[in-house]
Amino acid sequence: MRTRRCRLPGLAALLLLAALPAAAATEKKVIIDTDPGIDDAMAILLALNSPELDVQALTVVPGNVPLRQGTENALRLVSLAGRCDLPVAAGADRPLVQQLTTAEFWHGQNGLADVNLPAPQCKLDPRFAPDLIIELVHRFPNEITLVPVGPLTNIALATRKDPSIVPLVKEVILMGGSISGGNVTAAAEANIYGDPEAAKIVFSAGWRITMVGLDVGNKALVRRADLARLSSGPQSEFARAALGYILDRSEEFGFPGTAVYDALAVAVTIDRSLVTAQPMRVEIETRGEHTRGETVAYRYNLVDQVEWRDGRNMVVGILRVRPNAEVCVEVDAARFVQLLLSRLSGR
Amino acid sequence: MRTRRCRLPGLAALLLLAALPAAAATEKKVIIDTDPGIDDAMAILLALNSPELDVQALTVVPGNVPLRQGTENALRLVSLAGRCDLPVAAGADRPLVQQLTTAEFWHGQNGLADVNLPAPQCKLDPRFAPDLIIELVHRFPNEITLVPVGPLTNIALATRKDPSIVPLVKEVILMGGSISGGNVTAAAEANIYGDPEAAKIVFSAGWRITMVGLDVGNKALVRRADLARLSSGPQSEFARAALGYILDRSEEFGFPGTAVYDALAVAVTIDRSLVTAQPMRVEIETRGEHTRGETVAYRYNLVDQVEWRDGRNMVVGILRVRPNAEVCVEVDAARFVQLLLSRLSGR
Amino acid sequence: MRTRRCRLPGLAALLLLAALPAAAATEKKVIIDTDPGIDDAMAILLALNSPELDVQALTVVPGNVPLRQGTENALRLVSLAGRCDLPVAAGADRPLVQQLTTAEFWHGQNGLADVNLPAPQCKLDPRFAPDLIIELVHRFPNEITLVPVGPLTNIALATRKDPSIVPLVKEVILMGGSISGGNVTAAAEANIYGDPEAAKIVFSAGWRITMVGLDVGNKALVRRADLARLSSGPQSEFARAALGYILDRSEEFGFPGTAVYDALAVAVTIDRSLVTAQPMRVEIETRGEHTRGETVAYRYNLVDQVEWRDGRNMVVGILRVRPNAEVCVEVDAARFVQLLLSRLSGR
Amino acid sequence: MRTRRCRLPGLAALLLLAALPAAAATEKKVIIDTDPGIDDAMAILLALNSPELDVQALTVVPGNVPLRQGTENALRLVSLAGRCDLPVAAGADRPLVQQLTTAEFWHGQNGLADVNLPAPQCKLDPRFAPDLIIELVHRFPNEITLVPVGPLTNIALATRKDPSIVPLVKEVILMGGSISGGNVTAAAEANIYGDPEAAKIVFSAGWRITMVGLDVGNKALVRRADLARLSSGPQSEFARAALGYILDRSEEFGFPGTAVYDALAVAVTIDRSLVTAQPMRVEIETRGEHTRGETVAYRYNLVDQVEWRDGRNMVVGILRVRPNAEVCVEVDAARFVQLLLSRLSGR
Repeated sequence: MRTRRCRLPGLAALLLLAALPAAAATEKKVIIDTDPGIDDAMAILLALNSPELDVQALTVVPGNVPLRQGTENALRLVSLAGRCDLPVAAGADRPLVQQLTTAEFWHGQNGLADVNLPAPQCKLDPRFAPDLIIELVHRFPNEITLVPVGPLTNIALATRKDPSIVPLVKEVILMGGSISGGNVTAAAEANIYGDPEAAKIVFSAGWRITMVGLDVGNKALVRRADLARLSSGPQSEFARAALGYILDRSEEFGFPGTAVYDALAVAVTIDRSLVTAQPMRVEIETRGEHTRGETVAYRYNLVDQVEWRDGRNMVVGILRVRPNAEVCVEVDAARFVQLLLSRLSGR
Repeated sequence: MRTRRCRLPGLAALLLLAALPAAAATEKKVIIDTDPGIDDAMAILLALNSPELDVQALTVVPGNVPLRQGTENALRLVSLAGRCDLPVAAGADRPLVQQLTTAEFWHGQNGLADVNLPAPQCKLDPRFAPDLIIELVHRFPNEITLVPVGPLTNIALATRKDPSIVPLVKEVILMGGSISGGNVTAAAEANIYGDPEAAKIVFSAGWRITMVGLDVGNKALVRRADLARLSSGPQSEFARAALGYILDRSEEFGFPGTAVYDALAVAVTIDRSLVTAQPMRVEIETRGEHTRGETVAYRYNLVDQVEWRDGRNMVVGILRVRPNAEVCVEVDAARFVQLLLSRLSGR
Repeated sequence: MRTRRCRLPGLAALLLLAALPAAAATEKKVIIDTDPGIDDAMAILLALNSPELDVQALTVVPGNVPLRQGTENALRLVSLAGRCDLPVAAGADRPLVQQLTTAEFWHGQNGLADVNLPAPQCKLDPRFAPDLIIELVHRFPNEITLVPVGPLTNIALATRKDPSIVPLVKEVILMGGSISGGNVTAAAEANIYGDPEAAKIVFSAGWRITMVGLDVGNKALVRRADLARLSSGPQSEFARAALGYILDRSEEFGFPGTAVYDALAVAVTIDRSLVTAQPMRVEIETRGEHTRGETVAYRYNLVDQVEWRDGRNMVVGILRVRPNAEVCVEVDAARFVQLLLSRLSGR
Repeated sequence: MRTRRCRLPGLAALLLLAALPAAAATEKKVIIDTDPGIDDAMAILLALNSPELDVQALTVVPGNVPLRQGTENALRLVSLAGRCDLPVAAGADRPLVQQLTTAEFWHGQNGLADVNLPAPQCKLDPRFAPDLIIELVHRFPNEITLVPVGPLTNIALATRKDPSIVPLVKEVILMGGSISGGNVTAAAEANIYGDPEAAKIVFSAGWRITMVGLDVGNKALVRRADLARLSSGPQSEFARAALGYILDRSEEFGFPGTAVYDALAVAVTIDRSLVTAQPMRVEIETRGEHTRGETVAYRYNLVDQVEWRDGRNMVVGILRVRPNAEVCVEVDAARFVQLLLSRLSGR
């Protein structure tokens, strides 16, 4: 398993590498930009336990918790996974324009379900997260998949400093948005609401985006009974506690299980066939009274063409708009839950 | 049938009245506020051919077509139905605040599929539509169901002139809005987009609202094959031509049939059991860059409670919000199409 | 003097009418739309004591105080002036779209400086204020000057019901707005802030508007020493008390005197030469986060012409915009204060 | 002349340094962030010819011209001034969130009045402008005055990457905004309009800001006759040509002279006594329909306190708001023009 490989002494490592299946050559290089967060933690552990992915860095953004707490959490998680080789870098300490909103209510005071993981053995990388992203994209041109599972502040800042990265990124698979209602507000999902201006930058950048939104996440619930499928061991025990915590909250509000949104974005990165996606033009609303942070989707990529005629606006036709995202609309929930729980169990 | 009753000579009318089933006593008094429009025409004819409804007035608002054309169309339709007893009154000639947008592209240059109905025999009522609404609500307190199937300008103006009508209206069953994407824009449905400020007034007025939106309308398509079920006769022939016209347009853009939105709102007024509705808080967005005219729905009537703490906004709980509308989410399409086509056929 | 004329017995009145100077033929017919309010009260009394004006009606709108209180105040003021011949009609009970904001802090709990004027002897006219405005404009085509000194709700509603009044109104001289900062907020003056949507309707209607704003009002202060110039008598004693009340508030916040905004609008109606005005295009901001209700003025009626070229917006020239208002920028303060105080003193 | 000092060989430099008057110890260290631009060019030359200032860097932002052209212009200007010792660094290539707007109409196709200055001898510094700003602020804590005379993109990005610079910056003296009307639109001045989100970040950062706005700039016009006061020599001849170019445009639109906005900001940095400033709270409007990019100023640092009572909003008092900027309101125009023209003449 890749997560242990790096701790092997030289020769053993070489031997093991020789024995790896050819598939390893097709590992996807990913950067996970995260605000850990319970579902972020599941996403990170899923990625670190999946041989399909070659995680190049964790970059931390404030969101579910403030930057300092999120950075601490990221370090504890890579320590738990025994992956101190992996750079963990902190990014901006607040959203681009607005003030920070955090969600300890859902994620616990420490953001990790109030589970007290061991103090981190890994060290913080000193680089500014957007700078590290830029550096890695240039080191591995056309190879890096960005997997943002928090507000899009760091990704936006990276493109503003160096727009040349956009065509060099392989693709962006992000958790965020919804085309059928939000969670923070009626219209907005938390990651996009957490930095609407950054989201606007990212969605208009021009790269290939897959949007794994709130609504598709809500179709792939982990239920309490599923927790029995987790093995024993430090990672799976943490997962059991963390998922149990958020199941308590979800059940309290009448939901039959808990979504694990961020982990679904990582799962889609591992195995695209888990979801059905449709190309849509998605605009980010930044100004609305009730809709700030909404991902406004042209489901059919059509819009009325309106012109001023005879003293009034007149619909005179229909225009096609160009899609800028693949929006996930359906998910194979059973396969996702199976993938998540088995990988978290080290299987 | 009610639509013929009024044309009978005195004695015959009395005899017929005597023969009416007891159910007639439970006819719903409705005012249809309309911007005719093809689907408005279907809605009007459906209403006038349905013994469950006692239409008190047609009030006209600009939307699909300008006020003058819409008024002409309404008069031709009541003439076609032989219902000159019914007051037809014109309202405001433009939306409350914004400029008028019309949709001849979808409805034909004359708004009625470019079918040339006979010149109207009925006369325009001189009253201002909102004044007529106010008058009727006071004449029949707690009996009037408002059925707005155009922009909500007239209804809003009536409440601003006389807020006392709000508790005296039995209920409002309106065609408008969507909780899963719009038609004029990605976010907004035409009737709400046609006067967002009026919609804001109507949705916050405090009366009982049933929202028959774009998305539920799109689940109840009339297909080309269905047209064969229309009988012969002036009304059904007009219906065949008008529905055929809009089917052409719909098929051109890849849709398998045509929605008849406004008629569904009337059908719901006739038979509530055609739809499943859920109570939701619905806010009208008036300011967004991409979302002006959106009906923003709290699907679960829950919203994050956010407070300023420790130099940031923090989610500290979940708040319940009070529903202000019954939002239709499912429809028995087959029964609706059957009701529509049989009533339009005079059955 | 006109204000006394109506209280004379029949014959004396006829004699007096015969003796009226020819100038009476040039009296301006005005409708004052008002939310009384201390400065509204001064404006009303100034108008009723000025032979240049022929006040046709007072129409009441909520603003400084709720509609009920404002209507009561208007009736007490016309009673004080002995003018029960004058119709006083109530309009909308709230702004077009938003909720009502009142300012008892500035105007006293009763809106009239907590002075307890005698109970009204005049009766409320039963007509809806916008309907009365429409009726009067049609009765006196091209003769009526509208003088709105509150939020523009009633005026907007009148134009929406009957747009044909717009070219029949002689002119609109309104108190509202500012081109250099507001009072309720940094950007917005109270009357426009009180109903921005109505203001948008009124400023875009197409009639001739003179805007007597906050900033020009602030250049024509009544100072405490000026109060000595008021005579004795019921009206002037009320004026002394009311102006004294608002002077207390103004001095408390460091201002050397008090503006009497609404009275300045009436004074401009009486004598245009009191002010210098410049034609400007004025747009009403309804959406801003900090600027809702601002009167945005094109001081030079010029604006950058911006076009999309070479992947960016480019200023390619300057466009002229058409003025829609005469904006008062300077005032002869001494003459205004003299006019106000002498007329309030019955001179 | 200071601009030559840095090119002296070592020993001569030391001798000259020893001979410098004590005043040199009080030179202000400044970074000029600029989008050159005619008035930017005047500002840069004024700064480089003024012994009171120790320019540490020019950082370039797109605005009047695109980034590439602006960088070229900055290099030509420092070459013209013989100051290749000075780092010139390019920043972001577009505004934070919106698309770029440029103004070749006012500044010429090359941004420098279409004057063809000699090709630059100085080289571009490879650092990203915001990174250079961060580096310099940490190198000279509490000593750096930022003088942004373009859109605030680079300054905003620097604070987002490293918020610790805010308290280490001595002060910010910026050209931008207006409290009495804009130039690009009725409400917005070009630099703020050029990146409203960046301006919002900068104005809310917490440092000491002096705002040298459009309106105060318009009170310090250079007139055609003033050009005669420029000496001969490369810099002054360029200044004559550039100012002449913009005078042509200004006169064409009826203005009696041309403002040199950016140079006024540098002049204020040299000699604060040139202007009168008032502390005000300034908010940046980002959402308005007509007011995006407006600097909304609380002139008196007061605002109505509004509370929800008895079913309405009620003004219940006045609140003081905390100023965040010193807003220049008056200027000694004659002294400014004299300073500018004499320094540009090498006197």
